Amino acid sequence: MKVLVIGLGLIGGSMAIDLRSTRKDVVLLGYDANEQHLDAALSLGLIDQKAGLQDAASVDVVIVAIPVNVSLKVIPSVLDIVKDDTLVFDVGSTKANICKLISEHPNRRNFLAAHPIAGTEYSGPQAAIRGLYKGKTNIVCEVEKTAFKVQELAMDIFNDLGMRIRYMEPKAHDRHIAYVSHLSHISSFMLGKTVIDKERNERDIFDMAGSGFESTVRLAKSSPAMWSPIFEQNKDNVIETLEEYIVNLQRFKQLMESNDFEAIYREMEDTNRIKEILEGITIKSS
Amino acid sequence: MKVLVIGLGLIGGSMAIDLRSTRKDVVLLGYDANEQHLDAALSLGLIDQKAGLQDAASVDVVIVAIPVNVSLKVIPSVLDIVKDDTLVFDVGSTKANICKLISEHPNRRNFLAAHPIAGTEYSGPQAAIRGLYKGKTNIVCEVEKTAFKVQELAMDIFNDLGMRIRYMEPKAHDRHIAYVSHLSHISSFMLGKTVIDKERNERDIFDMAGSGFESTVRLAKSSPAMWSPIFEQNKDNVIETLEEYIVNLQRFKQLMESNDFEAIYREMEDTNRIKEILEGITIKSS
Repeated sequence: MKVLVIGLGLIGGSMAIDLRSTRKDVVLLGYDANEQHLDAALSLGLIDQKAGLQDAASVDVVIVAIPVNVSLKVIPSVLDIVKDDTLVFDVGSTKANICKLISEHPNRRNFLAAHPIAGTEYSGPQAAIRGLYKGKTNIVCEVEKTAFKVQELAMDIFNDLGMRIRYMEPKAHDRHIAYVSHLSHISSFMLGKTVIDKERNERDIFDMAGSGFESTVRLAKSSPAMWSPIFEQNKDNVIETLEEYIVNLQRFKQLMESNDFEAIYREMEDTNRIKEILEGITIKSS
Repeated sequence: MKVLVIGLGLIGGSMAIDLRSTRKDVVLLGYDANEQHLDAALSLGLIDQKAGLQDAASVDVVIVAIPVNVSLKVIPSVLDIVKDDTLVFDVGSTKANICKLISEHPNRRNFLAAHPIAGTEYSGPQAAIRGLYKGKTNIVCEVEKTAFKVQELAMDIFNDLGMRIRYMEPKAHDRHIAYVSHLSHISSFMLGKTVIDKERNERDIFDMAGSGFESTVRLAKSSPAMWSPIFEQNKDNVIETLEEYIVNLQRFKQLMESNDFEAIYREMEDTNRIKEILEGITIKSS
């Protein structure tokens, strides 16, 4: 099986690692717009050889693991040149735009829209790790628009990676993921910013930070090149979640200002329910 | 050495575990207002025997590890009855109120105000763990108001626990800790609330949550009984941090509304500096 991985960062690179270990016959071609990343991917052994986008014409599988704005350009041109049974799938965090864009493409049936809910806060080929996808959820959109044989190949690969599949409509995906992923990134980035701004005047502040702070701002390490286009493509949904979040924070502040610490206690007690919800996530992903 | 631990939750319980393993001669007495916690602490072997607050009169060390509002009542009455050389220290997340309250107490010199920056999101005696304090920062306030011999005993104990000491003025402590600890808890609680509220109508939403969301809302599991009094005692500082955080979120939203994704990119890039800061924390605590 010949696979072209377009984008050799954390996501594409980790997929290459697991494809190599689960598929003995795999030949991994790689392309990255960043020449240094491409070199690193080759020297790290993530891929067997460097390739170009035009190699999409001769492979069995194309994995598109690049920022979602670049995907909008790359996926249609890849679909233009693929063979009859080639599977092309993406892994982006927004699904409505890409599904709409290629809905009338003559090779729409070669494409599968996917979003593996997996990652770390690190990026680049050096961040690629074994087993990243094991036990994780992979959201697949508009599966019915993909050819049977291509669907089947995709499911075999996702199965090899150890993922569980959930089928969703693209717009519902984008609305829901805004809450459980995109908003977390903003809350984390802005928390980091608030403390960094303060630190400019108060040098010792980070010396006082513990593991709780570390956990809460972890996502503020994420790549702007990946996240800025996600926010752009999911603008309306993200703004909605952000508004609700700000309202909740303002309400909390008002409760403090009016010394209603009983109400604050109850707010926190109600939200403690997140324990059971997170236990569910941990059980799923372990 | 006879030690009375008042409050046998995560913090007091973990301290008892490490005191037992580092001090062979230690006898651990315990008290908790929650009778079930006291029973659990005994059966888990955290303490050697149950005690009452009046036992503060006959021990060498009193550790006060209870919610900061209760501390304001307990610490003065403990100081009323302690022996000449007894060390009394607290571990609370706010320092200005307690330092002010006991500033004129005849036994002020027996007290040391401390804040070990250590913990997990869990609570109660079952949450107590070995080595919680190893490599962590312990902030000590107004050390000069504590008697030499009592200071020395405290430093011996903190050293046994593996903590590094930082000296700070109580008001500066409260102002700084609002940024790197108290605000993180609110951002996390309100993020959890925002998503839970949404979930009431959208049942599948948590099925899509990954490790990033988990990390960001981890602190929303924290105990309201511990945190509500902290917010109350550090009200002015916390409100200030919350205002700055809300302003940053609103600005981010406005940048999105005006489609200025280049500015959003730069905001995130600037905040990525948190990586180096967090590496500092990780190196310290490992």
